[in-house]
Amino acid sequence: MDDSPARAGRSTFAWLVGASQLVGLASVVLTGVWMGHFRGGFAWDGSTQEFNLHPLCMVLGMVFLQGDAILVYRVFRNEPKRNIKILHGVIHLFALVISIVGFAAVFENHKAAKIPDMYSLHSWCGMATLVFFCVQWILGLLFFLFPVASSWLRAVYLPFHVFCGLILLVMAIGTSLLGITEKLLFSIMSTYSKFTPEGVLANVLGILLVVFGVLLGYLITKDEFRRPPNPEEESLSVHFKTLTEGQTPASP
Amino acid sequence: MDDSPARAGRSTFAWLVGASQLVGLASVVLTGVWMGHFRGGFAWDGSTQEFNLHPLCMVLGMVFLQGDAILVYRVFRNEPKRNIKILHGVIHLFALVISIVGFAAVFENHKAAKIPDMYSLHSWCGMATLVFFCVQWILGLLFFLFPVASSWLRAVYLPFHVFCGLILLVMAIGTSLLGITEKLLFSIMSTYSKFTPEGVLANVLGILLVVFGVLLGYLITKDEFRRPPNPEEESLSVHFKTLTEGQTPASP
Repeated sequence: MDDSPARAGRSTFAWLVGASQLVGLASVVLTGVWMGHFRGGFAWDGSTQEFNLHPLCMVLGMVFLQGDAILVYRVFRNEPKRNIKILHGVIHLFALVISIVGFAAVFENHKAAKIPDMYSLHSWCGMATLVFFCVQWILGLLFFLFPVASSWLRAVYLPFHVFCGLILLVMAIGTSLLGITEKLLFSIMSTYSKFTPEGVLANVLGILLVVFGVLLGYLITKDEFRRPPNPEEESLSVHFKTLTEGQTPASP
Repeated sequence: MDDSPARAGRSTFAWLVGASQLVGLASVVLTGVWMGHFRGGFAWDGSTQEFNLHPLCMVLGMVFLQGDAILVYRVFRNEPKRNIKILHGVIHLFALVISIVGFAAVFENHKAAKIPDMYSLHSWCGMATLVFFCVQWILGLLFFLFPVASSWLRAVYLPFHVFCGLILLVMAIGTSLLGITEKLLFSIMSTYSKFTPEGVLANVLGILLVVFGVLLGYLITKDEFRRPPNPEEESLSVHFKTLTEGQTPASP
């Protein structure tokens, strides 16, 4: 049997995963350079140096790690499912902890500098993303790692969990772009239009985040890259309803 | 045969489509109110009143009409496919023309007011979205309405066309949120943090655009709402390769 299309598919997958990691890491590094070089570095004392931890934590936690936590289902699609579930949950936990540090940084800085909270579109989108992220993480833990929910509820929730995960990643990227625009207009409004290095660097960071989102979106939604169905490892309890009703069990 | 799950699915679909139209129209109206009531109305004379046409045209063309052009494949999923293709192309054409008017408005205003172009992340994302939108529209026309491409090329391009369409909608919404943030910080930076009515209205507009995107994303990607396969109406030329190779023909 000629398996060259399958081999070409695996090769494309590997290149796209590599590209996504390169773009994702470049985004984290560029955020560090922006805050470290152009905005005075980092500290934890309520100053603008504490604020500078906010973009770095959000890009690392909410974008890069959240994206990679989803991607493990594709990269390790031939490994035992339970291990991948645990890895998925653990990377999301890291993402959550780092994001909470990022949130604390901006609220502490606002408090010290007497800047009002939660008035901007960036803050509204960011808070919505974090709250829904927490809800999604707790529900995922209860539904898929601990046997709290009924099998019927699990089967109903699975496609929503997958859809909401992708929406949360897109919201995290969109909120990051809003944060970039806000920070630039607060910091370099008078020189931004002159294509200063800081403005161009931050714009490039924004474009890299968009490219990361497009690559992840493609890798996650393309059927060819999904986990192949393996009835032996599927827990009957998860797919009991779909199996009994003759539907195809959905796989995240 | 008990078709109550199918009936419940149709009812959910109808409610979600209704909600998406309500949220989409509310976004267009809110943009009009923002620019009309808070920003001095509309004109075509290079003034800020000409700029005010930019947000209105982009939300109407790039977000609402682009979203609805995609949605016709779901709403009219039992109608003849060729008619839907033409409707899809025509609504996208309206979206494109309105968006070009929106682009002209901002460039004319910048020229008259001697404001530099294309320096912000909003402008970079917006230009990328419009350029890719044009490419996607022309390729769609050539591949699917005129018999220019080979059947093999059509079958290869179809899933990319569908994926890129959804990416373009998300990029249009993200770019709109960046535009809202830019406009607010340029216009009411000193009062934005005091939760002034204009700031709150613009933030609500941003959240409505996100909700529109989530609803459209759900309606477009859910398998249950897809066009049912109908081999009789499928042009053999489009799916020749997939049929001969025993794959399932993808349907947009």
